[in-house]
Formats: sequence, structure tokens, C-alpha cells
Amino acid sequence: MKAVGVVVEYNPFHNGHLFHLEESRRVTEGDVVIAVMSGNFLQRGEPAIVSKWQRTKMALASGVDIVLELPYAYSTQKAEIFAFGSISILQAIGVEEVCFGSEAGNIDLFHELYEFINKNKQHFNEQIQFYMSQGNSYPKATSLAFSSMKGKQQQLLDLSQPNNILGYHYVEAIHLLGNKMKGKTIQRKSAQYHDESFASETIASATSIRKAIFNKSANQKGTIHQVMPKSTLDLLTYYETSNHTLHDWELYFPMLKYQILSSTEAELAEIYEGEEGLEFRLKRFINTANSFAEFMHSIKTKRYTWNRLQRYCLHILTNTKKADMQWANAKNSPPYLRLLGMSAKGQAYLNQRKKLVDIPLITKVNSFHHPILELDKKVANIYALALPNRLQNDRLREEYTQSPIRFTEELKK
Amino acid sequence: MKAVGVVVEYNPFHNGHLFHLEESRRVTEGDVVIAVMSGNFLQRGEPAIVSKWQRTKMALASGVDIVLELPYAYSTQKAEIFAFGSISILQAIGVEEVCFGSEAGNIDLFHELYEFINKNKQHFNEQIQFYMSQGNSYPKATSLAFSSMKGKQQQLLDLSQPNNILGYHYVEAIHLLGNKMKGKTIQRKSAQYHDESFASETIASATSIRKAIFNKSANQKGTIHQVMPKSTLDLLTYYETSNHTLHDWELYFPMLKYQILSSTEAELAEIYEGEEGLEFRLKRFINTANSFAEFMHSIKTKRYTWNRLQRYCLHILTNTKKADMQWANAKNSPPYLRLLGMSAKGQAYLNQRKKLVDIPLITKVNSFHHPILELDKKVANIYALALPNRLQNDRLREEYTQSPIRFTEELKK
Repeated sequence: MKAVGVVVEYNPFHNGHLFHLEESRRVTEGDVVIAVMSGNFLQRGEPAIVSKWQRTKMALASGVDIVLELPYAYSTQKAEIFAFGSISILQAIGVEEVCFGSEAGNIDLFHELYEFINKNKQHFNEQIQFYMSQGNSYPKATSLAFSSMKGKQQQLLDLSQPNNILGYHYVEAIHLLGNKMKGKTIQRKSAQYHDESFASETIASATSIRKAIFNKSANQKGTIHQVMPKSTLDLLTYYETSNHTLHDWELYFPMLKYQILSSTEAELAEIYEGEEGLEFRLKRFINTANSFAEFMHSIKTKRYTWNRLQRYCLHILTNTKKADMQWANAKNSPPYLRLLGMSAKGQAYLNQRKKLVDIPLITKVNSFHHPILELDKKVANIYALALPNRLQNDRLREEYTQSPIRFTEELKK
Repeated sequence: MKAVGVVVEYNPFHNGHLFHLEESRRVTEGDVVIAVMSGNFLQRGEPAIVSKWQRTKMALASGVDIVLELPYAYSTQKAEIFAFGSISILQAIGVEEVCFGSEAGNIDLFHELYEFINKNKQHFNEQIQFYMSQGNSYPKATSLAFSSMKGKQQQLLDLSQPNNILGYHYVEAIHLLGNKMKGKTIQRKSAQYHDESFASETIASATSIRKAIFNKSANQKGTIHQVMPKSTLDLLTYYETSNHTLHDWELYFPMLKYQILSSTEAELAEIYEGEEGLEFRLKRFINTANSFAEFMHSIKTKRYTWNRLQRYCLHILTNTKKADMQWANAKNSPPYLRLLGMSAKGQAYLNQRKKLVDIPLITKVNSFHHPILELDKKVANIYALALPNRLQNDRLREEYTQSPIRFTEELKK
């Protein structure tokens, strides 16, 4: 059986994801689709709207065969580490081709860029440092460095587009991991990653969908069913009804505020992404903000991107220290595979493949011990604290008791 | 002017306190009464029902002339350190006599006991260790050791009574600090420290008063005005109305739960009072408790008193490390005096006395820096987090902006 891999967050699953999924299967002629999915916290440094279990159901209901969790130590990081963790997992489970969406839509451009940057690595890094020393954020400095080097070679990949950046790092990781997998890319349809409003009648970005959901304007909510499969909408509604909660940062703001107030500056500086005195800035503004949004606006500077600051806040919330991220940052692959769900076909693939996988395949968290997994257990607990008190304790136990989701036709209804 | 000192928590101020205050003034023939008062968190390891500022108003309205804050590093400790910090402050401000309530009501008994214990110190400590090794709590072991040593000397002070224990440590601290002050004691009237129901029509314990307030049974609340001055009741009511809050542990339980879940066992063991693997016990039961009361019942064992466990929880809430308490535990006196409030007479006393006080007298927290004061600033912030979100930020600034309360007749109304 040929396995094709996709890297996803599904926050929540929508028609754009469905298109990507079906195209991935078609262009690779794959038999099974394996998704590596961020757990409860995502690359932008925010909580997922519903838990990883519910998002696994969305994935299975729409045709994904196997869902594996991208651990927190990779999922909440800059593109380079996020991509490295994801590609490592897909390679470990035996994926032959990885298929990702991009603005460019042409895989050759990614490989050419990789060769170009690799050849000019030292100069590239020097340029990044130079632009950072001028007060630019890391992504901005990277983009400026790249433009300055690129010169007239206009055929090179446009690295100012968010999905091109991610795609570049997937290709980079494939190279780093010994070129054992093939990369493929599909041109993204209509909606842009950051779009806040619906771009077409059936395809909308996850950002715009979350915005519509949280705004609860009847008008916008009415159109949500047009941009996502019915199964997703049902699973979203079920989660919201049974938990009285859709997760967003505001629900965690009281905990963040408490953590900042109860920590010393030195303790905040020990937290991952704490640097250049950011901890003083957080301490200074925490007394005046009435919401997470207000707080973020008050600490924002040109020097740091929104996502970078949001990730620092997230690591404070989850008490994730610099030392906790050393393993992932040194580009060590995840030391295990955590199975969140599978279809019948996915199960058959795993049975066939199992013996060739040389790291543990985990279905219960108590069966394996590693700091990367301990971190995932901890953040799952913190994720649950957004729920009403009487529901929290069940969810706290869920991380230990939940077996991988098995696909049934029920999920589709 | 002759100053008499009292050690108080006023949680809240009631007729028993008023009796103690008036008797202290009478028996010592003092001109000014100086109270050293626990700040926002108290010796039993719990938040005060209203803030230290509101409790200062209660004290001034009932005739206290000067209120000084007992820092958190002393106020939330076992009797020995609590008493040492309190007596140090009273001595620094020039108090000649300290007057405390006790079950015994005879100061000679306290001095005799101090001589007796001092003479048999080594044997006493060995006996305490012996009883602790049999699984008893520290206070229980102390009491057993004392009984075994005391033998037939039945005239010695009864150390099983809570106010006798505190009183003993006041006398001990007076001795340790060079016998510069005189101790006096007044027999407590009617209500016992731990009583949960009203013992008489006009005197009730603070415990029973808080219980009546939180139960909000119209029946019991109706009788509260009989057991406290009108000024106290008005100040309580005003605080509750304007803050929509009377503080109790349950309001802080979500933060405690979050802190326990986001900390590793090793981090919990670094917290003051964390020992003998208590951190594992807390981690084990935090997922199943729905309230602070439930949590406390689940972690309680014979080995630790309720108050001892409550204090550990409090230090986790305030992120107070073992290192933060070293200064106080080594019996260093508080390095400053923090003025919370004064009457006109109190102010005259301070003007007269000021030059003789050899540690800083603080009226604004930004004017002095010491880890003991930093800790007080931090815990004041955490105390405020029980308030509704929109009121929190004003209270967070209060610690920096509030000047000492000056007594006006307004307070009495």
C-alpha cells in the first residue's frame, strides 16, 4: 500500500482541506492518506478551537486514514522546527510522498530554492543577522535577506507567502532526513492563509471560519455550512454543546495573567522564547490589559511578529522552559509516534507496516516515557482548564483513557 | 507616650477583638495601641476575607492607633516564625508592652514554661523527633513531647490550647530579642479560636463569623451585627458591594489547580513546605477534586495538620520558593516597617519616635527594595485576582498607589 502524507492543523477542517486531501490522493495515486496533526496547541501559538480528538474525528470523517499527533515541542514552533517534526513523523510511518498546498504550486521551485540557499548559506545567515540588527522580526529579516540575495533571479520561489515558507521547510526537512520521501505541491485555491473574510462561496480560510464562529453573527454563521463538510459542522456543534466551550485564547487569559503576576522576571526569562528583556515588557503591561487581545496589542513591537509573541505567551501558560525545547530545537526527530485515530484501511496499513517502524507507536500515553510526551500530557491538562469546572476533571482524565478514534460511518453523519 | 503592642489578623474585626483592645489599653495604661497585622494572607494559610486596607480601616475605627503589616514571609508560617516576625516589628517601633489573649491568662506561666523548655531543650527536640517519626504532625508531636516531659508538673502552661501556643512563642521571641519588652496576657472571653458557631450573644470567633457570612443564611447573617462593631459591618458590606467579592480559598482554587497541573513534581517540591513527597500527593488528587474543600479533604493525612497543608497550597498559589523563606526562617527580623494606617495620636507618636527607629518606615512600596517586600507586592497582586476581571487592574495598582489610611470619624460611621 502506498502512503501519502499531509501536514495539518484542521482548526477546523473545511472545504479547502477537503480539496487538498482529495488532490493529494489523486496526484500521488496513494492508497492511504496519513495526516500528522498539531495537538491541542497550534503553530501560531494558540489553542485549537476544539480538542485534538474532535479534530481527529473531522479528519477521519473526511477521508484521512491515519492521524498522528505532532507533539507540542514541534507544533508550537517556527516553521523550520514545525516542518522538521512533521516530516520526521511521516517518514517514520513509511510515507512515500508528502503533498502540501502552496501559493507557488510547483515543486521544482522549492528544490531549486533549497539548492540556492544551501549554496549561499553563510551569506544568507549574515544578511538575516544584519536585517535583524536593524530591528526587524526574524521572518521579516529572512524575507529581506532573501530579496537582497535573489537579485535578478526572478524565477526563484516567492518566500513572502506563508504557505511557500512552510513548504520550503518541508522540502528542507526531506533533504535533511536523507531524501527518502518525495515532495509534491498543489496550488492553493482561492483563500489565503491569513484571510479574515470568506473569499468564495465554498472555500474560506480557517481564520475567517473561526472569526465567523466566534462572532456568532447569525448572518455569517448561516454561511459556515457552505464552506465545510457537514461532518465537521456536526462535530463542532456537538463539541460546543457538550462542553459549553469553543477554545480561544481569551479563556486562558486569566491563567496567563496569574502566571505572569506570580512569576519573577527571572522565571519568565527561563521560559522558551523569552529573550531580550521581553519579560519586563510583559510584567509592565499585564496590570493594564483587560483581555488577551488588549494585552497582545500592548506588548506588540516591530521587533517581534504577533505569532512569535503569542507563542511566548503560550509557553508561559504551559510553563515550557527553554530546556524543554532543546531536544526539538537540536533537530532530533520525535522519539515516538502517537496514534490519534485511523480508518479500517489505516488499520490494515499499520498492521502491515508496524514491524518496519523503528520508534514506538503509542496508543496509550502511560505505556511510554519521554520528556516530549510528558510535555504533551501537561499541555493537554492545561487545554482542559478552559472548560466549565464540572466538566474539567473528565477531560483531564481523557488524555490517559482515550483510545485512538476508529472511523465508523457514524462520524460522517 | 507609652506604646502597647498587639498581634492581630482581624479577619474580620469583632467584639472579641474590641474587648482585647480595650483591656490591653487598660491593663498596660498605654497611650497608643500599635497593631502588627497579617497582610492579605493569614497564618492558617488562607486569604483574608477583605483586603489589608479594609481591615486596617476596621482597626482604626475601633481605636487602634497604628497598623503595621506583618509581611507574608512571617504571617503565613508556623507559630514560631509568625510570633518572631510580629514581636520584632513591635520592638522596632518602640512598643514597651505586648498584650495578647490566651486561654491561660497568666503571664508567669508563659515565662516559667520558657525557662523549663530552655533548660530541657535538647531532650525536648529529641522527643519531638521521636513522636514525628511515629507519624504525628509537628504540632501534635510537640504537644506529646511536652506532655511526656512535663510529667507531674501540672502547674505548667497547657500547650494544647492554640492561643497559649501563640503566646508562648511571643514570650520566646521577647526573650530571643533581648528582653526589651514586657509581655502581658488577658484571659480570652467565651469564644474559642476554632469555634464554628456563636458561643455567646456578643462574642463569637472569627471562624464562626466567616462561616455565617459565607453561608449567607439570613438567620445567621441577622445576628452578625451583634458580634461586631457597626463600623466593621459597614466596612465589610462596603467591600462586598464595591468588589462583588469576599475572599475565600474557593475563589483561588482554579489558579491553584492550574499551577499544580502546569508544574512538574520537581517544581512543586521547590515550593516552601513541600517535603516528603507531598508534591506527588497533590498531583495525584488535583484531577478529581471539584473544589478547594474537596481537594483538601483528599490530600489530608494524620501526618500533616490542615493548616500545614493549607499553607503549602498557599505557597504554591503564590509561587513562594524555599529560598524565599530563608531570611525569615533564620530568624532575621523584618528589614522594614510598613505603615498601613494611623490615627492622629498614632501620627504624633510616629513623629516623636521616628528618629529612634533604625529600620526604614515605608509608606510607599516603591521607595524600598528587599526580597521580603517584593514577595508582599507579588502576593498582593495574586490576592486581587479573586476580583471580577474589570475591577482587578485597579486593585493591582492599589498596592503601589495606596497611601497609609488616616483615621477620620468617617470610618466609624
